[in-house]
Amino acid sequence: MSELPPQNLPSAIVAWQALLGNEHVLTQDSDLMPFQTATFSTQSQVLAVIRPKNSQQVSEAMKVANQYKIPIYPISTGQNWGYGSSVPPGDNNVIMQLSGMHAISDFSEELAHITIEPGVTQQQLYQFLQTNNSSLWMDATGSSPQCSIIGNTMERGFGHTPYGDHFNHVCSLEVVLPTGEIIHTGFSKFDNAHAHKTYKWGVGSYIDGLFTQSNLGIVTKLTLWLMPAPEYFQAFYIMIEDDSELEDLIETLRPLRLNGTIKSTVHIGNDYKVLSSVARFPWHLTDGQAKLDQAIVNQLAKEWDFGAWNVSGALYGTKLEVKSAREKITAAFKHKVKRIRFLDDNMLGLAQKFQHPYKWLTKLDLPQLLKVMVPVHGLKKGIPTPDIIASTFWRKTQPVPRQPHPDRDRCGLIWCAPVAPTTGEHARNMVNIIEQTVAKYGFEPLISMSMINERSLDNVISIIYDRDIEGQDELAQQCHQELLTRFSQDGYFPYRLSIDAMNILQQTEPSYLVLQAKIKQALDPNNILAPGRYEVDNNKSPTR
Amino acid sequence: MSELPPQNLPSAIVAWQALLGNEHVLTQDSDLMPFQTATFSTQSQVLAVIRPKNSQQVSEAMKVANQYKIPIYPISTGQNWGYGSSVPPGDNNVIMQLSGMHAISDFSEELAHITIEPGVTQQQLYQFLQTNNSSLWMDATGSSPQCSIIGNTMERGFGHTPYGDHFNHVCSLEVVLPTGEIIHTGFSKFDNAHAHKTYKWGVGSYIDGLFTQSNLGIVTKLTLWLMPAPEYFQAFYIMIEDDSELEDLIETLRPLRLNGTIKSTVHIGNDYKVLSSVARFPWHLTDGQAKLDQAIVNQLAKEWDFGAWNVSGALYGTKLEVKSAREKITAAFKHKVKRIRFLDDNMLGLAQKFQHPYKWLTKLDLPQLLKVMVPVHGLKKGIPTPDIIASTFWRKTQPVPRQPHPDRDRCGLIWCAPVAPTTGEHARNMVNIIEQTVAKYGFEPLISMSMINERSLDNVISIIYDRDIEGQDELAQQCHQELLTRFSQDGYFPYRLSIDAMNILQQTEPSYLVLQAKIKQALDPNNILAPGRYEVDNNKSPTR
Repeated sequence: MSELPPQNLPSAIVAWQALLGNEHVLTQDSDLMPFQTATFSTQSQVLAVIRPKNSQQVSEAMKVANQYKIPIYPISTGQNWGYGSSVPPGDNNVIMQLSGMHAISDFSEELAHITIEPGVTQQQLYQFLQTNNSSLWMDATGSSPQCSIIGNTMERGFGHTPYGDHFNHVCSLEVVLPTGEIIHTGFSKFDNAHAHKTYKWGVGSYIDGLFTQSNLGIVTKLTLWLMPAPEYFQAFYIMIEDDSELEDLIETLRPLRLNGTIKSTVHIGNDYKVLSSVARFPWHLTDGQAKLDQAIVNQLAKEWDFGAWNVSGALYGTKLEVKSAREKITAAFKHKVKRIRFLDDNMLGLAQKFQHPYKWLTKLDLPQLLKVMVPVHGLKKGIPTPDIIASTFWRKTQPVPRQPHPDRDRCGLIWCAPVAPTTGEHARNMVNIIEQTVAKYGFEPLISMSMINERSLDNVISIIYDRDIEGQDELAQQCHQELLTRFSQDGYFPYRLSIDAMNILQQTEPSYLVLQAKIKQALDPNNILAPGRYEVDNNKSPTR
Repeated sequence: MSELPPQNLPSAIVAWQALLGNEHVLTQDSDLMPFQTATFSTQSQVLAVIRPKNSQQVSEAMKVANQYKIPIYPISTGQNWGYGSSVPPGDNNVIMQLSGMHAISDFSEELAHITIEPGVTQQQLYQFLQTNNSSLWMDATGSSPQCSIIGNTMERGFGHTPYGDHFNHVCSLEVVLPTGEIIHTGFSKFDNAHAHKTYKWGVGSYIDGLFTQSNLGIVTKLTLWLMPAPEYFQAFYIMIEDDSELEDLIETLRPLRLNGTIKSTVHIGNDYKVLSSVARFPWHLTDGQAKLDQAIVNQLAKEWDFGAWNVSGALYGTKLEVKSAREKITAAFKHKVKRIRFLDDNMLGLAQKFQHPYKWLTKLDLPQLLKVMVPVHGLKKGIPTPDIIASTFWRKTQPVPRQPHPDRDRCGLIWCAPVAPTTGEHARNMVNIIEQTVAKYGFEPLISMSMINERSLDNVISIIYDRDIEGQDELAQQCHQELLTRFSQDGYFPYRLSIDAMNILQQTEPSYLVLQAKIKQALDPNNILAPGRYEVDNNKSPTR
């Protein structure tokens, strides 16, 4: 199916080798393979990988790409797992890998900002703050500690702390445009401005958003705001036993998020989702069949002590402020839910200390439970963890390796993340669509609803499977496409798209598509940068 | 100085008359005069005023403008006082007045959002919420209750509550592009999306920022997020007696804003600024001379009980949360400042009740003071007020009219609003520039520093004068230009520009200017929409 490589490729390769050095231009099939491998089946062939070391090289490399008309697909660390990893949506791209650019600069403890390059990982930033004895927190996602912060931020990813809406906490960018010019946004467009890292709008039109979820520029530097560590922190966990209580749960949570009692993302996982976090697929209970009935899940939920829906969130502030929030949450849920637990660092420390006697007394597998609770607790404080990504091994039969890598390890993972207003009715509608769809294809409804802002619920559905089992790739893709079709027909559009989901954008109003095309044409006349990314591909059929 | 009107004008007028009705196309000099009048001297002549009633008419009117190549300058209510009011930066524009479009729609009490058109004023939205017995608050600015919310928001204006960064609380726009197409942003680009008023980023690139401080589109609808009224509210006032304590004041406030103890804009006015709010220029103390010495200000500060610098802010939350914040503020300023006062609604009510006995006991003119304090207290709760705008009459000798209108009343007002990181050092640098500059031109240093976000200080300098005194217009403009030059040389760029200040943008990096021009060219090939607005005019000399 793949197109022929462009005739100009050899000349472009020579030019990039001269610019970057031979060792930073990869063309061997074995070197390219990882960049053609995602957590689901993909077709796109990659022509080469180029690895610039700084903005100037990115700029020059783009000029070469324009000269020879070779499409460039920039990635940071390429760990866009569940959405396509490093793989371009179309064929015959050259990957520009930016993980070698990992400088950290302009750190200000007093003004709480820091400037990073695309290769800076969650772990690197976390270590940097630790090494500097900083009293500032970053926000982290549950993805790998080795994943890029810029990559996640420009995809408008979200995390767990009050700074969890990553793009909302960005203050000025350095961008290499598709034609190679380097620009700086916000007040950084002036070479001597003081407020370029403290005031994000700058003066004149605010263009930073153009470079998120798009193919209009390569972000080579980004200033991120950091959060002062609160005086006190407490996580909370709410459980409902019966699925029918979901609507009431959402309706009770909404005002608490809207009025600022809860200042950060609240995650609401169903029983299947929680099970996939604490354990592996219970093949022994299903006679080796990949069909996990509700009855088995109910039994495991009792053993593991979770409910039909399980809320986790956190409170940040002074002790008095957290107390106030705790009282409001407790009052709001009085008589409504099976259990609310509040857990601070001290209590977690005690639980760790006494986990073994506790297990003996209660039969609850606290040691195993803590393996999940500790990283979740940490994430709510912006501490990256390698432990969450292990849930992508849910359906695998071999053990989770020490350094899990879902692409390489042939984990099957597709994420679909439609957004709705935070109401019980919308939550139920989305759950119905999921339950009607995924079972048909033989997958579990792994659902995590996130209250990503004061008014919206993002329903992240994980299709998790084993790529080593024949036929599963196809079933997973069919399941994903049906989910997209059902969700978009019913008005629930994803906050973010996998490389297989771009065609959902065909449902955009025509005048908007014309505007988008005009801007792309103005900035990238040769259509060189990441063609097809967050764009309608007119050669593909619509999803509906 | 004015250019000849375009030859096509009569044909365009006929086309607009056919489209909008004769009564919505103004061409008489007397009708045009108000649109050529700002609070400072301007030269631009206006060709006509057109008044569309809906988005469709805006769209059609833009197509006429493109057909006949007539520049269009859109205004909402035209009260961009201190920055140019209704007046275009260039000559021979047709004004498109949108104040006739004032529908309010899609109000949701539970999700706290509302959709407005450009003619919706602060007062209208406030009344709407009152009429609906809403428990939601809007944010208001100190400008007239009759000014447009969209106008202010697209200029990235700010107010006083936790929702004071107006553009940050916008969720999807309807925009008429310069060539007449109507687009919808965020999830509104899909006709059936549910989350289009609750999730602002949508999917794909985020373009809303393009239409702020620009000339790339006409916003005809905007969804605004509203704030749930807090359980408890308390304003606070901090005073320092000596100017030398300014640095310490700023350094003490910064962490309180950064860590969320203070969730909203903090205003810090100097003695001159406070005096101009509570009183008129004391001509009787200066022998009728427009020179107000520090000694006189000191004397009046004693009478009125204010200090060299005067902070006002507010706390929002439960009683417990406000108590926690109050304790943190009190502790931070212990032994540092002359006075901290906390004032809630009850205390303000009591003060109003006992104002006359209090005056008799203390000699403090509480009744007059309350005339200022009540509207300031209200603003911090999002209640618009006509009382703040009265300070533009500072140098006028006639009484403030019942319906003050600074353009018509020939108040002189120019605002210059450079931004800096929130540090004592930057605050001092900016004050030094102001004091060295404005006195040379015979104006008072009327300074209000606003902590507009967690990290930045916006220094709003008001040049206030009487346009009826000969020579004052010229002095004020020279003063403004010198301020701009000094500030930009020292790295302090304004958050917003008056029509006279666009040339500060010549200091933008060349690659950025090229990008800006490409986007403008792609969206507005005939350069029809607001030419020169937030653009470099190459015919004018740079400010440095």
